Amino acid sequence: MKLLFIGDIVGSPGREMLKTYLPRLKSSYRPDCTIVNGENAAHGKGLTEKNFHELVEAGAQVVTMGNHTWDKREITDYIDKTPNLIRPANYPEGTPGKGMFFQKMGNKEIAVINLQGRTFLPAIDCPFRKADELVEEARKRTPYIFVDFHAEATSEKQAMGWYLDGRVSAVVGTHTHVQTADERVLAKGTAYISDAGMTGPYDGVLGVAQEPVIRRFLTSLPARFDVAEGRTQLCGAVITLDSKTGMAQSIKRILINDDHPYFD
Amino acid sequence: MKLLFIGDIVGSPGREMLKTYLPRLKSSYRPDCTIVNGENAAHGKGLTEKNFHELVEAGAQVVTMGNHTWDKREITDYIDKTPNLIRPANYPEGTPGKGMFFQKMGNKEIAVINLQGRTFLPAIDCPFRKADELVEEARKRTPYIFVDFHAEATSEKQAMGWYLDGRVSAVVGTHTHVQTADERVLAKGTAYISDAGMTGPYDGVLGVAQEPVIRRFLTSLPARFDVAEGRTQLCGAVITLDSKTGMAQSIKRILINDDHPYFD
Amino acid sequence: MKLLFIGDIVGSPGREMLKTYLPRLKSSYRPDCTIVNGENAAHGKGLTEKNFHELVEAGAQVVTMGNHTWDKREITDYIDKTPNLIRPANYPEGTPGKGMFFQKMGNKEIAVINLQGRTFLPAIDCPFRKADELVEEARKRTPYIFVDFHAEATSEKQAMGWYLDGRVSAVVGTHTHVQTADERVLAKGTAYISDAGMTGPYDGVLGVAQEPVIRRFLTSLPARFDVAEGRTQLCGAVITLDSKTGMAQSIKRILINDDHPYFD
Amino acid sequence: MKLLFIGDIVGSPGREMLKTYLPRLKSSYRPDCTIVNGENAAHGKGLTEKNFHELVEAGAQVVTMGNHTWDKREITDYIDKTPNLIRPANYPEGTPGKGMFFQKMGNKEIAVINLQGRTFLPAIDCPFRKADELVEEARKRTPYIFVDFHAEATSEKQAMGWYLDGRVSAVVGTHTHVQTADERVLAKGTAYISDAGMTGPYDGVLGVAQEPVIRRFLTSLPARFDVAEGRTQLCGAVITLDSKTGMAQSIKRILINDDHPYFD
Ligand SMILES: [Fe+2]
Ligand SMILES: [Fe+2]
Ligand SMILES: [Fe+2]
Ligand SMILES: [Fe+2]
Ligand SMILES: [Fe+2]
Ligand SMILES: [Fe+2]
Ligand SMILES: [Fe+2]
Ligand SMILES: [Fe+2]
Repeated sequence: MKLLFIGDIVGSPGREMLKTYLPRLKSSYRPDCTIVNGENAAHGKGLTEKNFHELVEAGAQVVTMGNHTWDKREITDYIDKTPNLIRPANYPEGTPGKGMFFQKMGNKEIAVINLQGRTFLPAIDCPFRKADELVEEARKRTPYIFVDFHAEATSEKQAMGWYLDGRVSAVVGTHTHVQTADERVLAKGTAYISDAGMTGPYDGVLGVAQEPVIRRFLTSLPARFDVAEGRTQLCGAVITLDSKTGMAQSIKRILINDDHPYFD
Repeated sequence: MKLLFIGDIVGSPGREMLKTYLPRLKSSYRPDCTIVNGENAAHGKGLTEKNFHELVEAGAQVVTMGNHTWDKREITDYIDKTPNLIRPANYPEGTPGKGMFFQKMGNKEIAVINLQGRTFLPAIDCPFRKADELVEEARKRTPYIFVDFHAEATSEKQAMGWYLDGRVSAVVGTHTHVQTADERVLAKGTAYISDAGMTGPYDGVLGVAQEPVIRRFLTSLPARFDVAEGRTQLCGAVITLDSKTGMAQSIKRILINDDHPYFD
Repeated sequence: MKLLFIGDIVGSPGREMLKTYLPRLKSSYRPDCTIVNGENAAHGKGLTEKNFHELVEAGAQVVTMGNHTWDKREITDYIDKTPNLIRPANYPEGTPGKGMFFQKMGNKEIAVINLQGRTFLPAIDCPFRKADELVEEARKRTPYIFVDFHAEATSEKQAMGWYLDGRVSAVVGTHTHVQTADERVLAKGTAYISDAGMTGPYDGVLGVAQEPVIRRFLTSLPARFDVAEGRTQLCGAVITLDSKTGMAQSIKRILINDDHPYFD
Repeated sequence: MKLLFIGDIVGSPGREMLKTYLPRLKSSYRPDCTIVNGENAAHGKGLTEKNFHELVEAGAQVVTMGNHTWDKREITDYIDKTPNLIRPANYPEGTPGKGMFFQKMGNKEIAVINLQGRTFLPAIDCPFRKADELVEEARKRTPYIFVDFHAEATSEKQAMGWYLDGRVSAVVGTHTHVQTADERVLAKGTAYISDAGMTGPYDGVLGVAQEPVIRRFLTSLPARFDVAEGRTQLCGAVITLDSKTGMAQSIKRILINDDHPYFD
């Protein structure tokens, strides 16, 4: 059993990369489930309904989000009728949308959970306790559980990995937009990577044009951040699960850019 | 011309890994200069004079620091008479120590600069402007300039990389304790990686024992953080420079742990 | 019906001020309940059992805490058997202690609630939702409800005041150690002040000796913060309640220092 | 010699309060210089050129700013030709505008300095060191020096007060929008108050309508923050200086609202 995850799609360069490479990755890896983080798909901030459909048409079965969930206000109009679009589960009660979705995989199903960290990010409900609650609920239905943990601090991410080790199939970090090289299967069988990285511009700052970001660091003046132009990249991970236990057998990083060209 | 950098040494497990592998890495790569980040070498926090000498005896020529510089108070007693131990250069005027050191490499020399970011870290002087000042000073003496940028946010790190691209040989990030997979030579010739990763425990949370960290995230109660026991890792990077221009020809990650065993 | 609240007691200067003036304030105002914030009573950080008893002997009936609750580790040994010592109620489940206490007032009782803000403070459970839960529980027993909201940001404090307006007798802020001049009875009858202020040194920085704090702002170097010596102050508030409805009729600041000397 | 300072003007309610009461306050107190913080004068965020002129016509001689300086982008078009409009002096080099202005007072002049704190606010240059530089420059021309220290943390504000004590006439805090009750003349003659408070809506959250702010704390969802309607307030301080030494003889809070009505 295989899962394919693609990290934060940034703007139209990200959507284009997804359209170009997701079909190829699917024919190479033949994943049973494909999950894509879409929190930056609309011009770098949020996700319009149109962009959501683009991601699905490109091959995403489940779309996860993060701290940019609400940046395009229209998401509140369609998220509640779009169960395969999830936002961090530990947002407060009463928040639109849900944080877990059960995706069919043949005659099986996988629970996809989205959580958000609190270190260097807004104060919301505890992601560790929310994880306990959702994992318990999910395990009643399936041993296949994928967690996209959208968080800034490596400490919080590694803590979540170890906390869920042996209870979920994979904990994959997102949000920093930089792929980490620490992919591994933890001691009790959970696949882990601190950050899957982003999909979009290759020569920007986290996907944004360099110059305004640098100017802002230099002057503290507000700046308009646009999605960078030019070369692009795609980042993600493929995880192989034991189909009996749901635990991970391997995790492999995917990184496509001019320095790491794609070969079939 | 080759540089070898080893990321944050954490406690005695980190010092042991350095003693074990630095000699082997040196005989493999034959670096002209070896730089080690030592901010966590003393029980995970700071650097005693004794530990500094251990790092040097293990093969470090220059030791860089970060936000944990002052955790062992005795450093203020010896840093001013130890020029090859540097702390972030953008600490305020009047701070003990220096932030740049010129290390001999045969009949040449390399400027090693340490800077610290301000995003999610204490407010100090601007690292970008301090970089301008030091790089200008360094370039009068040598085209070989290495920057250890100790910072949390990937945005600040990437911005610094692009900001210094073409002006320094390498910008290598430290502090998150997780190696990133984004090593590359930037457009104008500067080698870049967001984080080199840490050297020390392999099964902790950033080098610290898991359980107290998890308990803290769950309860917010204070906890004693000790260096984790058990398996260990070493993280770093090797950078090859054009000996004429000082610009980078390549950057290669070094990662040694049970999942990536070392082979000569 | 009258309530007397005294803001954060800082170290022995704060405990001395309490011993000196609480008896006099009690004979002037004849409060039905006296509440004291004790989070800094032990050398500026936390509360030992000995110090707790000093506060009670000085006249405190209920002691509230804040972000310094756990600074003296021994509190975990006695807080669970000391019901009139409460810590912020929105600490995660499983935390020692409780966040609400019902204090007898003749044949009546008052609910004293302690909550902690999350803006610029660690991420814990939502203070607004926890307030809903506790206020509902309290109102089944009594219309007299006092809230010590320990928080940094004026926005979060004012939001809490308006949120609870008409549902509790008083929302009194603590934590900034500076008394605010915005005491008032809100539209629906809740007494409010953003911060009651602190009790302890008058010539320090929030109760701490000036010099090390200033040096830290100038140099970012770590510093040892001791309770300031010299002149002292006491800060608090007196609130008068309608004994039928429990709503506030008035709130008056108490401020005793060399610039505002106490007269009976 | 007398100074009148009016705290953060919020939106049109704030501008109206200024127009109504500044003439009366001037005829009561006959200040030699009137300074107004205008960072929120335009719909709660920033300052248009039109609004700046309204403040001046209402009687402001010098206008200070804060972290909202750049919220209305047009300020960069007129700030450089408007010397009596100053922004925090410790913004990085190359930032439009200046942070100090010398206002004529008969045949004398007063230096008005604006500084911004760094605790819980963006990382800029050190306000303490910038204060040293500007105060030294100012003292060559005049003993009358007024500092508007725009900062969040009470610790940083009190530290600045003590740091400048005896070197400037007054350190008046702004930014929290809540007037503090700690006005005093410090040991060496500097008038001090942690926050002057704001001028604008009386029944909002820092001037903003309650409901969206509360909803945001409850749900973390983004919300549109509008200036609150209804009753209004004015906050400030009057400072009397020794005309020889420039040191303060007294500082008196000004607070006008329905609970503290104005009497001539
Ligand atoms: Fe993202
Ligand atoms: Fe994000
Ligand atoms: Fe480190
Ligand atoms: Fe660090
Ligand atoms: Fe306190
Ligand atoms: Fe506190
Ligand atoms: Fe303001
Ligand atoms: Fe402000």
